Amino acid sequence: MPASSRASGEFDRATSVRRDGPHTHRATLSADWTVGHAVNGGYLLALTGRALSDALAHPDPLTVTAHYLTASRPGPAVIHTDAARPGRTVSSGHARLVQTDGDGREVERLRVLATHGDLDALTDEVRTSAEPPTLPPFEKCPGYRDALAGGMALPELVRRCDVRFDPSTVGWAVGKPSGRGEIRAWFTFADGREPDPHVLLLAADALPPTAFDLGITGWVPTLSLTVHVRRRPAPGPLRIVLRTRNLAGGLVEEDGELWDATDRLVAQSLQLARVRSGD
Amino acid sequence: MPASSRASGEFDRATSVRRDGPHTHRATLSADWTVGHAVNGGYLLALTGRALSDALAHPDPLTVTAHYLTASRPGPAVIHTDAARPGRTVSSGHARLVQTDGDGREVERLRVLATHGDLDALTDEVRTSAEPPTLPPFEKCPGYRDALAGGMALPELVRRCDVRFDPSTVGWAVGKPSGRGEIRAWFTFADGREPDPHVLLLAADALPPTAFDLGITGWVPTLSLTVHVRRRPAPGPLRIVLRTRNLAGGLVEEDGELWDATDRLVAQSLQLARVRSGD
Repeated sequence: MPASSRASGEFDRATSVRRDGPHTHRATLSADWTVGHAVNGGYLLALTGRALSDALAHPDPLTVTAHYLTASRPGPAVIHTDAARPGRTVSSGHARLVQTDGDGREVERLRVLATHGDLDALTDEVRTSAEPPTLPPFEKCPGYRDALAGGMALPELVRRCDVRFDPSTVGWAVGKPSGRGEIRAWFTFADGREPDPHVLLLAADALPPTAFDLGITGWVPTLSLTVHVRRRPAPGPLRIVLRTRNLAGGLVEEDGELWDATDRLVAQSLQLARVRSGD
Repeated sequence: MPASSRASGEFDRATSVRRDGPHTHRATLSADWTVGHAVNGGYLLALTGRALSDALAHPDPLTVTAHYLTASRPGPAVIHTDAARPGRTVSSGHARLVQTDGDGREVERLRVLATHGDLDALTDEVRTSAEPPTLPPFEKCPGYRDALAGGMALPELVRRCDVRFDPSTVGWAVGKPSGRGEIRAWFTFADGREPDPHVLLLAADALPPTAFDLGITGWVPTLSLTVHVRRRPAPGPLRIVLRTRNLAGGLVEEDGELWDATDRLVAQSLQLARVRSGD
């Protein structure tokens, strides 16, 4: 059964949530999806998205925005959801993910605003002017291990994902950023788990910041991440294109396209992050 | 005084909110900012943004997302805010705008998730690769009255705003859409009120849908609108560029850039709207 084989992946175990009351889910943030000490923002959006899929009347995220308040840590977390009265074809709601800090104090990690629908009910009409990215074949593109050879230590997140970079957009890894502010890559899970709408929420924030390609190094914490899920992705690797057009005032914007193996634009994203020059 | 002259505009009166409790503001949605029977989504975002500026520890919207649940009507409205514990440089919170329907039942109109900060505290660093749009001079560009001569009735919103379209992107008004899905225009208020961060929230949704330039007609209701405010705009007309790259499955994406009179990219936006073919 596809459903059970899908549910056997690392991603599914790490983003599982259990209902604990009408407006509450509990989860354990996995140390396997971290970058440094912080849990990855895309993983958090996917996990919160699964709580929202349970809490809202419609299953699939169509448009989701997360605002990141404080850095999440591996360990227990509680997701509080607040659903609006559902519409006929879409339903909207909030979620707040909280953790307890060392002093036993509740600390809010992120807030999410989501509108869900049913991707299978969308029409088949397509009038996309965006062009799918042309990357060298998956197996000809360097992965993190190749790109960072002799460089930085691999974040845990990177071990879960098989990301292959377009060689022309990976100069930042060896101290030669292109300055264009663009990163293109293939994305699959290391364990072969196929993409679905919640995976798109993770994948929208699973690549290095495009600020790296502008020569910025150090921590680029996300303030907000918006993802539009436009279609259920076909099996096979995704292609992700991230671009920034605007680094200014210590903030950097990043917009993304996620394409599936059948050349369909399955998600678009917009992110705002802080750049800490000199970190 | 610039502050008082600013506050004398139609926009300021129409988006004023009054605090009515620790988490509640009251407002009157103005019939002057409607398109058809519905109150404009950008106006609603600006008005809700003013309640959030009062409720949050930081004054300026940096990244704001609204999800529109039902069409707002002119008349009384209540905004419920829920602020997270503020950070040092930014603070985040939710807002819910509700109205009472003809049966006395509370109906939610929109939800907003916002992170505010202090635009005057941002660094002066600018490394923007986006190029400001080149439009013919303001006075050489047709306004709504010219573009729609003999066509549709002017929405109320349009009377408040002095929008001048790049002639090459206004063919849709006379039944000749370019098919590119792009609209470029100058934007000022009819009463000369200068732009500020809350005006940017309105302006991000004050032009016709780019779907019109794809030959789509009829109502294009917004599901979600995200706006990044990147800088306090200088006095003078704004230039707005809206593009869509992806119309599919009955949903259309629209991304926007707002430039001020000094060629600074002051805001970016991303919108998801429904296309009702055949309406």
